[in-house]
Amino acid sequence: MTNETETVSESYVHGYKSRENERLQDQAGTLIDLLHYDTFYPSGSTVLEVGCGVGAQTLTLAERSRDAQFTSIDLAPESIEEAKRRADGAGLTNVKFRQGDIFDLPFPAESFDHVFVCFVLEHLARPVEALAILKKLLRPNGSITVIEGDHGSTYFHPESAAARAAIDCLVTIQRNAGGNALIGRQLYPLIVAADFEAVRVSPRMVYVDSSRSDLVDGFTRKTFIAMIQGIRESAIAAGLIEPERFDAGVDDLYRTTQKDGVFCYTFFKALAEKRQTTNPGDAAPKVFANVATADGVDQG
Amino acid sequence: MTNETETVSESYVHGYKSRENERLQDQAGTLIDLLHYDTFYPSGSTVLEVGCGVGAQTLTLAERSRDAQFTSIDLAPESIEEAKRRADGAGLTNVKFRQGDIFDLPFPAESFDHVFVCFVLEHLARPVEALAILKKLLRPNGSITVIEGDHGSTYFHPESAAARAAIDCLVTIQRNAGGNALIGRQLYPLIVAADFEAVRVSPRMVYVDSSRSDLVDGFTRKTFIAMIQGIRESAIAAGLIEPERFDAGVDDLYRTTQKDGVFCYTFFKALAEKRQTTNPGDAAPKVFANVATADGVDQG
Repeated sequence: MTNETETVSESYVHGYKSRENERLQDQAGTLIDLLHYDTFYPSGSTVLEVGCGVGAQTLTLAERSRDAQFTSIDLAPESIEEAKRRADGAGLTNVKFRQGDIFDLPFPAESFDHVFVCFVLEHLARPVEALAILKKLLRPNGSITVIEGDHGSTYFHPESAAARAAIDCLVTIQRNAGGNALIGRQLYPLIVAADFEAVRVSPRMVYVDSSRSDLVDGFTRKTFIAMIQGIRESAIAAGLIEPERFDAGVDDLYRTTQKDGVFCYTFFKALAEKRQTTNPGDAAPKVFANVATADGVDQG
Repeated sequence: MTNETETVSESYVHGYKSRENERLQDQAGTLIDLLHYDTFYPSGSTVLEVGCGVGAQTLTLAERSRDAQFTSIDLAPESIEEAKRRADGAGLTNVKFRQGDIFDLPFPAESFDHVFVCFVLEHLARPVEALAILKKLLRPNGSITVIEGDHGSTYFHPESAAARAAIDCLVTIQRNAGGNALIGRQLYPLIVAADFEAVRVSPRMVYVDSSRSDLVDGFTRKTFIAMIQGIRESAIAAGLIEPERFDAGVDDLYRTTQKDGVFCYTFFKALAEKRQTTNPGDAAPKVFANVATADGVDQG
């Protein structure tokens, strides 16, 4: 463990621009039930949210657990400002926002009952180190919840090599920036490597056919395809793909939103505990109430 | 619609050999809850199971719905014999077995309340035609349940190009035999194309990390890797891959069963109805009790 500071990559692929913010908000709006039906923190517990961005997850967390106290941090001051505005607009009084770096957090050890991390580890070159730092901030018997996507979990009908090539550009750009767009499937080994216990991973698959028009629009178009379109210029500038090929890939992704098309993507949600190993007299957190329902098979 | 006979491809990739039968049995044993927690047929209803093979699904169906009457057919007489032995061994009295071809079935129109098809359409060159034939056999307001895998839904950690190449061999072999190993994701458009109504598809994702040792052994090793190993000779004989590359791929698939490995695969289960369109006086089936729980997101 070191105290050196690692910032999230400057070429952070999701950006902090306003159209991106809208996309992240759309994403949370469509996916709230999928990701958060089992996210709940008990009354009086303290929760650290790392990498809150513009507050897309924060609002859901704080609204679902009104009697828990949230501290939400992000590296970008402008994101924090926007998150504050949104939390105020939603009338939330149980969230404090702070600017901060996950590798240099301004909190003493064992400050929180729970930690929540969503769409953050994918951008870090040293995710296990970040998890170990977060573990130090947890009280014994505290929990960590981690949610990440996995772009390699994407498949669709009709199949398209061009669409796969466009998606691969995003995977490459994120890797070149020090991140990992395939991190969802790796949550279990990463969290185990950071010495957490009782690690349970639960896949959250988004299945979209034309009978599910809300997901066709809210997820396939406005979340996934919008994200791919967002890296067009950088993918071409980096020489990863020809413009025509990229555009054909995007067209083919739109093709999956037609009447006979299908689109699949999987998020992974992990829940783990910091078990009490020494000093039984340490302050214990509130009762652990963030229920894991995964049991190896994901029953739709 | 024609009455010509189409047989399942002679190079049926799963084979009818006894080690293959064991594998199929292992598969059903591990996956029963995943595939069948919501499979139930009401008392007195009649169910046609098409392509029962050696009875891997039949036993589960007939045990879960003891007061329904099953008719299970398969193209291969030796599979029917084995299925009969197993059903007798399990003490089941609510199943009749018959040899038969899905494209030339010996039943009059509107003979059954429900139809069940599992791991069959993947082997057919004309799946929509098969579905339309099965629809004719259903009474108005009857249901069809279809379950298929999708080998393109496979992903794992650590990633391996050799493992993907070995899996692609199976996809190619199945395509060359007139089948479709990527059919799972296509169930919705196929069933809609066969004019069924109220089509609902529910993905059933198998997520395997080392905390789930039953699935590591029962699914990743004994079902999926065994299936890939089963096509080694034909893949090499067909010039699809070099032996060293294939074996490296299988080694890499085994690598995913280690402590830090992860393996993901998704089955798709569809439920659809034949709505009563004419002749309201036709015999109606028993109350529809095969509950669809899918609502677009697969909550683990």
